[in-house]
Amino acid sequence: MKTYSQEELKALTTPEAKTLCEDIRRYLVDQVMSTGGHLASNLGIVEVSLGLLRVFNLPDDHVLYDTGHQSYVHKILTGRAQAFSALRTYGGISGFPKRSESEFDSFGAGHSGTAVSAALGFSRARALQNPKDHSQHTVAVLGDGALTCGMVYEALNNIRPSDNLIIILNDNDMSISKSVGRLSRYLSKVRKSKRYLSMKVKSHHVLDRIPLVGAGIERGLSRMKRSLKSIVYRSNLFEQLGIYYLGPANGNNLEEVERLLIEARRHRGPVLVHFITKKGCGYAPAEEDPGRYHSVSASAGECVTFSEKFGETLCELASADDKVVAITAAMESGTGLSAFHSRFPKRFYDVGISEEHGMTFAAGLSAGGVKPVFAVYSTFFQRAYDQLFHDLSLQNLGAVVALDRAGFADTDGPTHHGLFDVSLTLGLPGVEVYSPATHRELCRTLRAAVKDFDTATTVLRYPKGSEKAEIVRRFPCNGNVERWDSGQNARVLILTYGRITEQALLAADRLKAVGVECTVVKILKLKPFDREALAHVLRDDVFDLCYCLEEGILSGGFFEGLVLRLSAEERLIANRFSIRAVEDSFVPHGKYAELISHTKLDATSVSREIASLL
Amino acid sequence: MKTYSQEELKALTTPEAKTLCEDIRRYLVDQVMSTGGHLASNLGIVEVSLGLLRVFNLPDDHVLYDTGHQSYVHKILTGRAQAFSALRTYGGISGFPKRSESEFDSFGAGHSGTAVSAALGFSRARALQNPKDHSQHTVAVLGDGALTCGMVYEALNNIRPSDNLIIILNDNDMSISKSVGRLSRYLSKVRKSKRYLSMKVKSHHVLDRIPLVGAGIERGLSRMKRSLKSIVYRSNLFEQLGIYYLGPANGNNLEEVERLLIEARRHRGPVLVHFITKKGCGYAPAEEDPGRYHSVSASAGECVTFSEKFGETLCELASADDKVVAITAAMESGTGLSAFHSRFPKRFYDVGISEEHGMTFAAGLSAGGVKPVFAVYSTFFQRAYDQLFHDLSLQNLGAVVALDRAGFADTDGPTHHGLFDVSLTLGLPGVEVYSPATHRELCRTLRAAVKDFDTATTVLRYPKGSEKAEIVRRFPCNGNVERWDSGQNARVLILTYGRITEQALLAADRLKAVGVECTVVKILKLKPFDREALAHVLRDDVFDLCYCLEEGILSGGFFEGLVLRLSAEERLIANRFSIRAVEDSFVPHGKYAELISHTKLDATSVSREIASLL
Repeated sequence: MKTYSQEELKALTTPEAKTLCEDIRRYLVDQVMSTGGHLASNLGIVEVSLGLLRVFNLPDDHVLYDTGHQSYVHKILTGRAQAFSALRTYGGISGFPKRSESEFDSFGAGHSGTAVSAALGFSRARALQNPKDHSQHTVAVLGDGALTCGMVYEALNNIRPSDNLIIILNDNDMSISKSVGRLSRYLSKVRKSKRYLSMKVKSHHVLDRIPLVGAGIERGLSRMKRSLKSIVYRSNLFEQLGIYYLGPANGNNLEEVERLLIEARRHRGPVLVHFITKKGCGYAPAEEDPGRYHSVSASAGECVTFSEKFGETLCELASADDKVVAITAAMESGTGLSAFHSRFPKRFYDVGISEEHGMTFAAGLSAGGVKPVFAVYSTFFQRAYDQLFHDLSLQNLGAVVALDRAGFADTDGPTHHGLFDVSLTLGLPGVEVYSPATHRELCRTLRAAVKDFDTATTVLRYPKGSEKAEIVRRFPCNGNVERWDSGQNARVLILTYGRITEQALLAADRLKAVGVECTVVKILKLKPFDREALAHVLRDDVFDLCYCLEEGILSGGFFEGLVLRLSAEERLIANRFSIRAVEDSFVPHGKYAELISHTKLDATSVSREIASLL
Repeated sequence: MKTYSQEELKALTTPEAKTLCEDIRRYLVDQVMSTGGHLASNLGIVEVSLGLLRVFNLPDDHVLYDTGHQSYVHKILTGRAQAFSALRTYGGISGFPKRSESEFDSFGAGHSGTAVSAALGFSRARALQNPKDHSQHTVAVLGDGALTCGMVYEALNNIRPSDNLIIILNDNDMSISKSVGRLSRYLSKVRKSKRYLSMKVKSHHVLDRIPLVGAGIERGLSRMKRSLKSIVYRSNLFEQLGIYYLGPANGNNLEEVERLLIEARRHRGPVLVHFITKKGCGYAPAEEDPGRYHSVSASAGECVTFSEKFGETLCELASADDKVVAITAAMESGTGLSAFHSRFPKRFYDVGISEEHGMTFAAGLSAGGVKPVFAVYSTFFQRAYDQLFHDLSLQNLGAVVALDRAGFADTDGPTHHGLFDVSLTLGLPGVEVYSPATHRELCRTLRAAVKDFDTATTVLRYPKGSEKAEIVRRFPCNGNVERWDSGQNARVLILTYGRITEQALLAADRLKAVGVECTVVKILKLKPFDREALAHVLRDDVFDLCYCLEEGILSGGFFEGLVLRLSAEERLIANRFSIRAVEDSFVPHGKYAELISHTKLDATSVSREIASLL
């Protein structure tokens, strides 16, 4: 794929630009099928991304891709086509916009719904610094899924008639699973009604010239005109928020895209351009099954995952207990809840990209007498910390919060790693925290949490992917604290929990080979900590070194608090303590093996560090 | 004030009920002027609260007061009139709804925007358990300010036509400072236009019978009817979300209130009742200046507060530097930004109750080249943790996050204490955290943060109220780490930070009186920790005991990590370490002195504990 300069892109004739779109599609399919990544949404946004680069002047104009998984075409066309073979690989380019990667990535993303807020910041900053210069533009590109996210609405509510801000609504009727809620139905009506679309095209130049923003809104007939427009477009929702509305238009027709972008560029004040695009556009398999091609995995299919085990167990529990209900925030498939949805449609709630609402909704369900289980990725849970605090923990309400993707989230990188959930949840009074390391542990803790559903919120955190065979092989996985010894004369105690236990075991093997025997203790229940169970498995042993291994941030993590308590005890379990966790920095994207090596949590680093400490 | 049973309230004739409203108003003014608390909003909601109790069957029907500061009348009328003299006092009733306080408080509150989510939970839980029983109702009572909060929108978007849910919009055109954003202007139009109101009353029974929810929406003329209604009511926003709209009506007219509540109760499916109420209604001083009577303080006026010093310093900085801008989330006055707003209106942004948006907006402003300072209460910051993580910290963007009300927030209680911010912010890579203990330190750190506004987000956390004289007297407050000795032969080192330093000093005085000399070290910069400055002030001293005192949660707090590092060092600064912080439980409401005593952080407890440890 050729690398184009911005000038070259602008100089292309429309037929040449259309040919480029086809080239990009082919390139995307080739690359992403081999590297893995988000395919369908990027195929759908080819014309919009190219149009933005041809109509606006990047990087002086700022284009912000919300969530950012649909920024591949933007990356290809802003000097990163050659880098694409290293997409989402360790040291390679990110699957999301990243300021440090390119001046064309105005604002990083990964979590949904941030682009309008940030774009408003850019726009206001520019207005303050150059109040008379209207030549620069700020564009936020949103998927329709982002409109389920409350932050977007907070931002829309803050837009003033004087804000120069362009919002592109890339409406492909499918966020990650499917869009939920009233707004989605509303957009769907706009889309499905061909009549509105054709009326729109015909009446475009007449109706769109009616002044609707600022003073014009108050004038004479404007109310009647608004109502007329509302009948044509059904776009009141945006216009009631004072945002000039353009569309809907076919976002896979380059001429139409560029025509509307030019019009949006000319407009003073906030404007929303509604493009309807086809997810997977131009690649038949992805067009037919965009869900399957939403995110393509480069690796071979893994064994059963934690997510699947979670979903399976929850189905069992739900068939035995009418009160069990499941919540997801737009991650039905990712959290393993598809089967639950099919089997118990009335007890399944996909709340959209609304983690905050999801958590408080769970609290309301619990107060109302049923048993909510909210499955959410660890990183997205960060959005609902206050709701866990204020609505569940503070009220001692029973609920299960299942944190999927706890620990490294591989190739998705720093916006998606789940490294903070332990430090966030340990501080919350009354909340119980478990970190299952095997499917068996997950199933058991989930069953117990649902059975003893009383006055405590239980957090279950488990990683992406499948259990590690080494852990299954060496631990029966039937207690809060378990022990495995590499020999009779262990000098070193390795304390750990969750998936990284595998590396502790492998490190013990390496150390055994050089004559150092270790005891590995795996902890399941992080809070409240089961001190008795630890004393029981440790018997009266005292070690030279207690080495703690944690796949999570050091500060406020599990071992900071635990080691402090253990080292303050009368009878020390070890002469020395040492913690290896994720230090005070963000971890890049890459394969799990690369990331544990990057953070020195892998068996090689661990065994070396232990040897050096002895 | 008499205690009424629910039956007695229902049995009152309308004239009797109106008399009761007057009695309640007098009682509220008498009580709240002496106990302190929220006055104006409660005076405004008397008829609505009484109407809800007369029309619905509590506690079988659930009424959820959003945010909850306007639940006083509800409390008075649900068996807590006698308890009112102890409102917001230690051991007395809470200023917010609390499940543990009364079965009539269906759901606790304190942070805005949670009631619709929770009410939806109650409603769905009921529908699951008793699908055929429509006799029970769930009511969420929202102020107009809550409509600036994204969570509410997430919840509204999740409401289905089949949900039995009543939302009361208590619209008094004034959330805490003033409502912001487009929606507020939209509501204001509805309110101000008398014509709409009178048309509404006349056409009420005709127009409101037009079916708008569910299948009806698709039928023949419904589009035209909707447009007609939109001209009359301008209520499209709610109806587009599939919610049947009733109002606007005078919420201080008991007959009108009860008529609409009865209609809402009869309606199947989601319904929003829009009441216009007068903040301070019935008490002339509060009607004239509702802002002043929003929250009445029982204590005598304090000296200059941290918030005021913050605002003052920020004004200075803004006059010297065009790039300085300020953000608040509906807390202009509370965060001391009123003068800034007057002096720099173009550089002041009140984003409404939108902490999430506020933080990402700050990130956008920073990326756009200006210098955002976001002032937010510590407890409300919990809502924007993910945005600090994802948009500021991860991108290394410069910003100042000023966390007001860090530490105990007195009589407001557990929903308002700022005890978690240190544990939340310490884990974030690249974020710098300061905890000024005096006005001078606040001003100095704020100036430095704005001056060196480069690639790091600076968090400044400071308490409610004023600086403590003891701290000012004994520390010059000019370094990251400072030392004060009660004598030449200190055996005990007390490490501490922030306001609680006062108690450390007073404890040292008490210990001195019994012959134990102490060194008190106050830390200003929590992250990155200034190890050299500590070494410098400690010289080569070694203590018997290092006692750490923290006005914040223990788990993940400042001292857990610090003590671990200090006790792992080659040359220990003390033979023993001990941490006193807020243990794993929520702290109730009460005066500061009561709360530090409750948590054993007061000088008496500290000196006793130190003596016992020696």
